[in-house]
Amino acid sequence: MFETVTMALDWLGVVAFAITGALVASRKEMDLVGFALLGTVTGIGGGTLRDVLLGSPVFWVREPAYLVTCILVSGLVFFTAHIPQSRYRALLWLDAIGLALFAVAGAEKAALAGGNGIVAVAMGVITATFGGIIRDLLGGEVPVILSREIYVSAALAGAAAFTLVMTFDAPRELGIGTGFAIGLLVRAAALHRGWSLPRYRPRPGLPYNR
Amino acid sequence: MFETVTMALDWLGVVAFAITGALVASRKEMDLVGFALLGTVTGIGGGTLRDVLLGSPVFWVREPAYLVTCILVSGLVFFTAHIPQSRYRALLWLDAIGLALFAVAGAEKAALAGGNGIVAVAMGVITATFGGIIRDLLGGEVPVILSREIYVSAALAGAAAFTLVMTFDAPRELGIGTGFAIGLLVRAAALHRGWSLPRYRPRPGLPYNR
Amino acid sequence: MFETVTMALDWLGVVAFAITGALVASRKEMDLVGFALLGTVTGIGGGTLRDVLLGSPVFWVREPAYLVTCILVSGLVFFTAHIPQSRYRALLWLDAIGLALFAVAGAEKAALAGGNGIVAVAMGVITATFGGIIRDLLGGEVPVILSREIYVSAALAGAAAFTLVMTFDAPRELGIGTGFAIGLLVRAAALHRGWSLPRYRPRPGLPYNR
Repeated sequence: MFETVTMALDWLGVVAFAITGALVASRKEMDLVGFALLGTVTGIGGGTLRDVLLGSPVFWVREPAYLVTCILVSGLVFFTAHIPQSRYRALLWLDAIGLALFAVAGAEKAALAGGNGIVAVAMGVITATFGGIIRDLLGGEVPVILSREIYVSAALAGAAAFTLVMTFDAPRELGIGTGFAIGLLVRAAALHRGWSLPRYRPRPGLPYNR
Repeated sequence: MFETVTMALDWLGVVAFAITGALVASRKEMDLVGFALLGTVTGIGGGTLRDVLLGSPVFWVREPAYLVTCILVSGLVFFTAHIPQSRYRALLWLDAIGLALFAVAGAEKAALAGGNGIVAVAMGVITATFGGIIRDLLGGEVPVILSREIYVSAALAGAAAFTLVMTFDAPRELGIGTGFAIGLLVRAAALHRGWSLPRYRPRPGLPYNR
Repeated sequence: MFETVTMALDWLGVVAFAITGALVASRKEMDLVGFALLGTVTGIGGGTLRDVLLGSPVFWVREPAYLVTCILVSGLVFFTAHIPQSRYRALLWLDAIGLALFAVAGAEKAALAGGNGIVAVAMGVITATFGGIIRDLLGGEVPVILSREIYVSAALAGAAAFTLVMTFDAPRELGIGTGFAIGLLVRAAALHRGWSLPRYRPRPGLPYNR
């Protein structure tokens, strides 16, 4: 049962991110294979990095159905991406859902692999953000982590909330639900209301040589 | 014997990609060490990623002669890159040969490591394309996967052809030869005749907000 | 004792690189979490890649204090980066110290893991340079390896000097000291005096098609 929930998170996150990768491919007017590559790399990138860092077998090597799903989803976007009128908006919201899902799934997998709380939170953030980072690097986009609104912080909030709840020996479903909800809410608020954290600002009156 | 053929593929692919890395270094007017770095990373990058994802020992850590070869090849390009009159053209053709070689070698190594057909094809594509992707990222070039002509598709065709032939218990040489020939032919046609797949195109008449 | 020296190198290198990551974040006017992400990725990136390539457990998964340190250091920079008048200069010098430390630490860890001399030198160079490479890619900066002055060569000199000294069964402290000093001196000379190696130059009079 627990396994099932974790796997469902992984699958949903993979699908959501695969769509965002394919949407970037549509913005670059790539061909079908380009869609499949960018969709797949985005869908499985964060989880792949997590598994490599944990020294676990990479999930999609054991379970190639993840690859097939990413390719099918990307193909679907290729033929239907003209339907949504605002593809960029859709990309951001799907990215938000994937971010919240992977923040929890990454933290959970790290905890199951024996990592302590800090490592679990770090793996949640890595799983949630590196699919999008790789997507933006390969697609020649401005990395989403440089965006003005809260992004990495939402993944951090979700992974930290999950890890915190689990330290109280709470039922796993509670931890997963709380982590997902907090991650998604924070990112949604950032998208909807333009929430942002205070940014570093050069102090006026001080000279800089660059 | 089979081992020998696989290793020969690997070596030729490494040399071809190392030259392309060094040619990018020549376009950026880097120094000798820059040539060695970019040549080596390009030559071994795809195979390194393949080995890490498969959980196999990284090939050049076991066999440092690969490193030495990349460095020597890059040095040779440093002193002779003024000879070919059209370095960019040479880069594209060597890249095509490396692409076809690695598509087969990557798929074969994954199959030997117990991966099923889908994983084998994916590893072929990864091995064939990520050396060039890393080269372009580090060298500040536009990623070759964004190019208009067929690129990733050629690696896919080669890896899929090899995997298909091998499912019929054909002799390995036949699979390797077929995969390599198909991969190279597809990419050569793309380079020579400008072959491309249909690209995603925004539908006219529909408004997009970006 | 030997363990202690190696660990001290690692710690100092991690701190130095984490600061450079945070300084790039300050140049991009990121928020506190952005500082922590970029500082951490830069601090642990090179060593992480080294461990993955060697097939060793990733150092910070076993010892999460590295993560905590990177986050704290990045936070410190967030609140004090306005103090140094020339943040870019500070970035370059800290980067030089981290480069020399990691060149030796990477080569030593590879040697301890059973790699031969060539692999040890390669791992020294990788550990020393990839933290900065990842930092520049994620931060949208021009990769430091494309800079005009000697950079990768300094890591190479340090790692090679360490490996050379160690082949004579010299005390480890001597090897570490020599490697660090040579790496730092070469990079410092490059920064201070603009040392550079001869660069590849297109020969005049020869036509190029690009």
